[in-house]
Amino acid sequence: MTGGDAVLSELARVLEERKQAAPDSSYVAGLYAKGLDAILKKVGEEATETVIAAKGGDAAQLVHETADLWFHCLVMLAHQGLGPEDVLAELQRRFGVSGIDEKAGRAANK
Amino acid sequence: MTGGDAVLSELARVLEERKQAAPDSSYVAGLYAKGLDAILKKVGEEATETVIAAKGGDAAQLVHETADLWFHCLVMLAHQGLGPEDVLAELQRRFGVSGIDEKAGRAANK
Amino acid sequence: MTGGDAVLSELARVLEERKQAAPDSSYVAGLYAKGLDAILKKVGEEATETVIAAKGGDAAQLVHETADLWFHCLVMLAHQGLGPEDVLAELQRRFGVSGIDEKAGRAANK
Amino acid sequence: MTGGDAVLSELARVLEERKQAAPDSSYVAGLYAKGLDAILKKVGEEATETVIAAKGGDAAQLVHETADLWFHCLVMLAHQGLGPEDVLAELQRRFGVSGIDEKAGRAANK
Repeated sequence: MTGGDAVLSELARVLEERKQAAPDSSYVAGLYAKGLDAILKKVGEEATETVIAAKGGDAAQLVHETADLWFHCLVMLAHQGLGPEDVLAELQRRFGVSGIDEKAGRAANK
Repeated sequence: MTGGDAVLSELARVLEERKQAAPDSSYVAGLYAKGLDAILKKVGEEATETVIAAKGGDAAQLVHETADLWFHCLVMLAHQGLGPEDVLAELQRRFGVSGIDEKAGRAANK
Repeated sequence: MTGGDAVLSELARVLEERKQAAPDSSYVAGLYAKGLDAILKKVGEEATETVIAAKGGDAAQLVHETADLWFHCLVMLAHQGLGPEDVLAELQRRFGVSGIDEKAGRAANK
Repeated sequence: MTGGDAVLSELARVLEERKQAAPDSSYVAGLYAKGLDAILKKVGEEATETVIAAKGGDAAQLVHETADLWFHCLVMLAHQGLGPEDVLAELQRRFGVSGIDEKAGRAANK
């Protein structure tokens, strides 16, 4: 069984494989074929559904929609030749060096 | 040094700690104090910035905005008593059992 | 022929009528039947498509998506017992009295 | 006093004038100077705030946020050399000819 922490990288590996698949072979292969705009529409759509779920107050629904949002972010990253490791490295850089404090500094400068 | 995979859970641990902090002690403590709506506004805002960055075509900017989006999702989850492990477990459940195929089925039923 | 300026109020009148219609009689009647969350998902979705269209640089596409966004805002308002006249009155209040300057004041206080 | 229906076109006229103004002379002049991405961020941000307000159930807040959303759509249109009359003509075209039915057809084809 896969440890929870490795889910993103394993999922990214699968998403990479799907790039070779026929457009009608899976949901993701179909999204790749439709192109970046179709993927970004899903990112925006799932972000809205996450907000609606959070306001609705059902924890299971919120987890479901956040998973949908992160999933489509992974598809977006894969489509652009990137992966979750890039995002995690960025978070670690902020977190490991100055982390939340760096965010506080950025907010103050806005 | 922290392995990239553990970033989300380590970040979640820090976010949990910030719940006890004074509102003016950090950016996150301030967001908690403002409440759910303020956190959700950031989720929506960062999702839009992610879409704009992806259309702009600058990889570093896209990684930066996606990190902002995931970070604020973590704050949202923490505020609701949830964590990244819930989202990762949901992704693993979909991925381990039927994964992308389950998504394809859902899409077909929409 | 209807003057361009009266489009929003005429459209609102039609949307009001559709509240009595069977859910499968039209797109809007179906949206009403699905409820507020379904309508809000469309508002968020069309906002994202508007952003994508603006970044794409095709004027006709941008007009198309903005029309979709405003249309679903009208459905949302109708569902909540409101109408475009409420939004226009709010815009006029800001515009007629202190208008953009009031906005500038608000932005400075954020 | 301006009739409610003419608010959008009058507002568009003012937004057009602001294009000539110094960036620090008003909120809108500042937005123009920051460019398209900054304007689109506001469109996405206000769409999210509209969704949150609708879920919150406060009618006055919903009107306020929808006004913010439409206002920033007008700024976006002006920045792209378009105006509300283009969006209203598109809505009238759909509404006058086949209107909501055309939307129903599009939804069925999605």
